[in-house]
Amino acid sequence: MAAPIHIGVIGLGRMGMLYARLLATQVEGARLIAVADTNRQVCEQAVQAFSVRSDFTDPTELLRTPGLDAVLIATPTSTHAELILAAAQAGKAIFCEKPLALTYEEHRRLLQAVERARVPLQVGFMRRFDAAYQQAKALIEEGRIGRPTTFKAISRDPFCPRPEFADPTKSGGLIVDMGIHDFDLARWLVGSEVERVSAEGSLLVCQNLAAVGDIDNALVTLRFASGALGNVEVSRNAFYGYDIRTEVLGSEGAVLIGAHQHTPLLFLDRTGAQHDVQPYLSERFGNAYLKQLQHFVDCLRHDQSPAVGGADALAACEIALAATEACRIGHPLSIEAFRQAHQ
Amino acid sequence: MAAPIHIGVIGLGRMGMLYARLLATQVEGARLIAVADTNRQVCEQAVQAFSVRSDFTDPTELLRTPGLDAVLIATPTSTHAELILAAAQAGKAIFCEKPLALTYEEHRRLLQAVERARVPLQVGFMRRFDAAYQQAKALIEEGRIGRPTTFKAISRDPFCPRPEFADPTKSGGLIVDMGIHDFDLARWLVGSEVERVSAEGSLLVCQNLAAVGDIDNALVTLRFASGALGNVEVSRNAFYGYDIRTEVLGSEGAVLIGAHQHTPLLFLDRTGAQHDVQPYLSERFGNAYLKQLQHFVDCLRHDQSPAVGGADALAACEIALAATEACRIGHPLSIEAFRQAHQ
Amino acid sequence: MAAPIHIGVIGLGRMGMLYARLLATQVEGARLIAVADTNRQVCEQAVQAFSVRSDFTDPTELLRTPGLDAVLIATPTSTHAELILAAAQAGKAIFCEKPLALTYEEHRRLLQAVERARVPLQVGFMRRFDAAYQQAKALIEEGRIGRPTTFKAISRDPFCPRPEFADPTKSGGLIVDMGIHDFDLARWLVGSEVERVSAEGSLLVCQNLAAVGDIDNALVTLRFASGALGNVEVSRNAFYGYDIRTEVLGSEGAVLIGAHQHTPLLFLDRTGAQHDVQPYLSERFGNAYLKQLQHFVDCLRHDQSPAVGGADALAACEIALAATEACRIGHPLSIEAFRQAHQ
Amino acid sequence: MAAPIHIGVIGLGRMGMLYARLLATQVEGARLIAVADTNRQVCEQAVQAFSVRSDFTDPTELLRTPGLDAVLIATPTSTHAELILAAAQAGKAIFCEKPLALTYEEHRRLLQAVERARVPLQVGFMRRFDAAYQQAKALIEEGRIGRPTTFKAISRDPFCPRPEFADPTKSGGLIVDMGIHDFDLARWLVGSEVERVSAEGSLLVCQNLAAVGDIDNALVTLRFASGALGNVEVSRNAFYGYDIRTEVLGSEGAVLIGAHQHTPLLFLDRTGAQHDVQPYLSERFGNAYLKQLQHFVDCLRHDQSPAVGGADALAACEIALAATEACRIGHPLSIEAFRQAHQ
Repeated sequence: MAAPIHIGVIGLGRMGMLYARLLATQVEGARLIAVADTNRQVCEQAVQAFSVRSDFTDPTELLRTPGLDAVLIATPTSTHAELILAAAQAGKAIFCEKPLALTYEEHRRLLQAVERARVPLQVGFMRRFDAAYQQAKALIEEGRIGRPTTFKAISRDPFCPRPEFADPTKSGGLIVDMGIHDFDLARWLVGSEVERVSAEGSLLVCQNLAAVGDIDNALVTLRFASGALGNVEVSRNAFYGYDIRTEVLGSEGAVLIGAHQHTPLLFLDRTGAQHDVQPYLSERFGNAYLKQLQHFVDCLRHDQSPAVGGADALAACEIALAATEACRIGHPLSIEAFRQAHQ
Repeated sequence: MAAPIHIGVIGLGRMGMLYARLLATQVEGARLIAVADTNRQVCEQAVQAFSVRSDFTDPTELLRTPGLDAVLIATPTSTHAELILAAAQAGKAIFCEKPLALTYEEHRRLLQAVERARVPLQVGFMRRFDAAYQQAKALIEEGRIGRPTTFKAISRDPFCPRPEFADPTKSGGLIVDMGIHDFDLARWLVGSEVERVSAEGSLLVCQNLAAVGDIDNALVTLRFASGALGNVEVSRNAFYGYDIRTEVLGSEGAVLIGAHQHTPLLFLDRTGAQHDVQPYLSERFGNAYLKQLQHFVDCLRHDQSPAVGGADALAACEIALAATEACRIGHPLSIEAFRQAHQ
Repeated sequence: MAAPIHIGVIGLGRMGMLYARLLATQVEGARLIAVADTNRQVCEQAVQAFSVRSDFTDPTELLRTPGLDAVLIATPTSTHAELILAAAQAGKAIFCEKPLALTYEEHRRLLQAVERARVPLQVGFMRRFDAAYQQAKALIEEGRIGRPTTFKAISRDPFCPRPEFADPTKSGGLIVDMGIHDFDLARWLVGSEVERVSAEGSLLVCQNLAAVGDIDNALVTLRFASGALGNVEVSRNAFYGYDIRTEVLGSEGAVLIGAHQHTPLLFLDRTGAQHDVQPYLSERFGNAYLKQLQHFVDCLRHDQSPAVGGADALAACEIALAATEACRIGHPLSIEAFRQAHQ
Repeated sequence: MAAPIHIGVIGLGRMGMLYARLLATQVEGARLIAVADTNRQVCEQAVQAFSVRSDFTDPTELLRTPGLDAVLIATPTSTHAELILAAAQAGKAIFCEKPLALTYEEHRRLLQAVERARVPLQVGFMRRFDAAYQQAKALIEEGRIGRPTTFKAISRDPFCPRPEFADPTKSGGLIVDMGIHDFDLARWLVGSEVERVSAEGSLLVCQNLAAVGDIDNALVTLRFASGALGNVEVSRNAFYGYDIRTEVLGSEGAVLIGAHQHTPLLFLDRTGAQHDVQPYLSERFGNAYLKQLQHFVDCLRHDQSPAVGGADALAACEIALAATEACRIGHPLSIEAFRQAHQ
């Protein structure tokens, strides 16, 4: 049996803590041996909670932990580049939260560095590991819906973000920040590359985003190389709950993913029927987070390439950035034209 | 093509009016030619609304309408016997609302009279004509659920009835009044006769029923000749809506019929998700009322026996009456023992 | 009580026959007194089925029927103009199937004629009369979803049409033919006018439409004057069933209309759970057809203007035609620019 | 902050392993320090997997582990008595899988011993800790459904058990083995004690159970002290999936718990719509297992009595045993009479 993978987690925010916990307790074949965060207190909490051996406030020091095989990067996006480059140079396998970078140029630069260093890289598109999405993909690959003709996605968050998180210079803006999972799913499920994008956006509810220049609602239209069409909606104002829906219509059938009920309880009285809604991310995708880490660790242990690598990250990012630009300029943009403008 | 069937409707309450309307406007091959109700005003309304040729306050006169082929009896149960006997004697085909009678003895007497007169008889078990029940029956007959092992039914009404309607001497009591459709479905869907019944009942909410000596909730347990088991719940206090559910579990699968949503509208806000519930009978079974009349008329036009005849009515009634007695005496009762006690 | 409205139906295809039946049997205060169709046999069938007094193969003759108050026009769209003009000249109230016309110019010409003649006009946007849409509208007007931010609509048909019906010179093309209901709902539910449209379209499955130059899938993006955004999907290849969904997200909540189940039957076996899907239009909107006719008749009887008049028809048509053009030229089009180009 | 609770797990079958994992990794304030199983290999696996300090093949030795605060007993039911008595004598807090014992007499003997030893005891009725059940309980306590009138429960397993597990001398028989959770929920949700039970049972599908004398389907009827009625169905032949439903109807409303879909994926094609079903216990109640352990540990740390203690276990067991007897003798049995017969 393959030896366990020794992993360090860099960045102990909400996501980093979740990943650290999963690596420490549930991912088979993984050993969490180091954590790093600029906040010492947070580091100490993680050491206690997960019996980690070492903790650092300087992530580059973590990279020198003896026996370290891989790092998981869950820091703010603006710091990804430096950490990916350092990890690649140190020869460590990398799991990085999406997006890798906020510009196409930097994205490509990072991928080149990772390729040169020949280290495995997986990007945090956890939806691909959710049971419903995996079954949808399987049904599509078996030909059960025929040729995909239409891709639809809705990603709605139940609250306006704090402006500092939504600042487009840090988040990439609404379409990148919220839509990138959908763009990844679009390519993966339709099985064809996106060729052209257009978008409409508005700031309608989260007026606190005006200060940082972001919008809170956008509709992105996609045209695929196959002729298939797609539409992605992203919104910040679904205050009723976390509403993630994806569907693919094909020439023979369709797959629809999404549910408006979380707890299987229906309450009935004279006013009608009531039930709850998915509250947020971890309730909907908790299991997918575990599965993507398990996949990463399994790949490292068996010398296989992770299924969601740098090329996928770049492709999804390209669509997101092109859609952001299409929204700004007010007319459709081909991915090819976007690429040429960013050579 | 077969000649149209000339029908008279006796009893123009809510159900009678519905039937008259359906016969006048939607049942193919039917012609509504006469109506009767003790209330003259109601008769005149029907004449106007449906362009009926004749109306009567004495139903026996209606039976002498020239050219009359059939009568539909929608009067209170206590009057069914007299009308069925008169119609049978007059040689008219009979459609009668359920139940035919409130005692086993009278039920049998009526069926004998109908048989002697050799007139067709259909009883108003409209659920058998509902699309969902028809598909369930088809699936069961195709063997898709294997051998039925468990029958479950819930029949819940959204309001306490007025005591005069719930008076057991007129309605047969809760278990007869509300459960008779379920007992009919039980035999039909399970494909086996009920051999033994037991029941628990309570008066818990509709205190106005105390005066007439009825209960508002009952649970009836059935044992079928095949060994299959069944449970029927009837309740008057589902103030949230009209809740009718039926299911059959088998050795290979199951069919579940029932829905808690009427209009396909979901409203979502910070308090969760809300939708409506089936309001009442006609919203759920409106179409089945039409289809059962169409079936009756089609049978008459093509000299076939209606699918839901006197024997079915008797069998469902027997179960309902035996369950009512089992509830009263507090222990199980075999149908055979019930029959012998009522020879 | 107001006198009944005497109506003639022109065009006895599938829809015309449905309307004639509803007027003859279920619409209160209406009297179907004449029908017209170029096919004599069809006329005679209607006369028999609905006890109509007069029938014509020439619709202009029908307009001279003594006592006629109103006409219902259910002929192919290309004949609407002539019939509307004749009916307006004859001073008859008009109910016309959507769309009134296939060009913006003709549409305006018809409305001017109707206005000059001061005859009431209602257009067949029946979805507005469906219970779910009416409740959604009420919830929005009560402020329950706050300010609308996003309108979403899916209209999917379960089959490829015959090319002669889909010929854009007769149907207006996919976006007009299938999307016009959605564009009407968009304006009505969002409570703001559409200012700009863009669209992507493809011919992917119904290859028989290539001959007439139509597409089978399109995604239309809308921007409303209020800043709200919208997306309408129309598709011919939902072979699984008739799939109509509409939703409005707002600053406080959302309404979602649509259901994937028709009959309340769930079948369960080792392969999982199965249920049916809405088969087609009349199963989903049958009741709305009745209600829109009832509204038309009620308005005529009480001297009120129908809720869905010529201006609504024009506005929905404008969006549909502009979206069709935006799809052709490949970039967004403002409604204002569309109008100016079609002065 | 309270010190962590040191726990040992006795019995490392499927459930014991699950509990050990939860205690080792997810239950806050717990420390898994010892495991015991008669199978040495299994012990060693647990030691490795969960970094446990000590393992034993003799559970009584485990009780002498220094610093041990509590034991979790997950062995076969027939061994519970001996272990509970030993743990009580050793002064350890006890978490025991349901049922504590298979006879009323032994059950009482154990509770007396636990009471004398004044050690905390929690029984594994994990459904009470499931989010849906907790919300249902809260709604009922807030009076949202008024006074409960009817309790309904369905517990269906997706496979016939191996005869050695279903042997009534070891499992208590179908009604005890599968219904005990429902009887506990009945008391808890209705808020009234069960006074009378009756039952019908059959062996219909799992013919391999004939050898051990068990049945595979039963319907139990309950009458509560409040007059409320109840029905519990247990079945072994729901091969389509794990189907657990519970509902309480009240004088003002109702709560329904249960879902027939696991993964939020709907597949649509010409044959209709398909989705999956809950596969089994851990998918449905995985989280409730964690929460009940957390509750146990929290109670120990804060010197509170566990919410689901010995009296609850006895009451549920009493109903289950009385129902089993009522099924055998074929007529209703009052709980009082059952108790007196078992003094």
